[in-house]
Amino acid sequence: MERLDPAEVDRAIAGLDWTREGDELVKIAARGDFAGALAFVNAVGALAEHANHHPDIDIRWNTVTLHLSTHSAGGLTANDFALAAKIQQLYGA
Amino acid sequence: MERLDPAEVDRAIAGLDWTREGDELVKIAARGDFAGALAFVNAVGALAEHANHHPDIDIRWNTVTLHLSTHSAGGLTANDFALAAKIQQLYGA
Repeated sequence: MERLDPAEVDRAIAGLDWTREGDELVKIAARGDFAGALAFVNAVGALAEHANHHPDIDIRWNTVTLHLSTHSAGGLTANDFALAAKIQQLYGA
Repeated sequence: MERLDPAEVDRAIAGLDWTREGDELVKIAARGDFAGALAFVNAVGALAEHANHHPDIDIRWNTVTLHLSTHSAGGLTANDFALAAKIQQLYGA
């Protein structure tokens, strides 16, 4: 999987409700409480396992922060954007 | 819940397989893979909900890092050590 160039990254992120921080895609998702956050993490985890691609996941009570990157490629690849799009469906448009 | 003084913290941490970083208890638990890490997080989450006390949880594929503190007390309390001890039982002595 090849690292996308900056123009490809710009195009790919245009339709996504994620932000870019350096070589990572970042999403902060707040739920109603810890149980909601944990349910979200499990749903993300199922997608990650299916894709065999795993975001870094930080849980702060009701808030989940996800960081996606392809370390083996040294940056963002189509895999990151594909998983980000699937995760986005979990929390709605 | 009152913040413990340094001598109380030293006594409380003596029997625990956690480290102290400033005003936090820290545990790094590695599992075999992401699924194992997520199962551990769910077990920790059930204990946290029961105690109504929630660690910060960071997942990096197969590795889970937990940070425990009582922010409302400005430091470590008996609640932190009680939950740390319960979590310790999850990963064994």
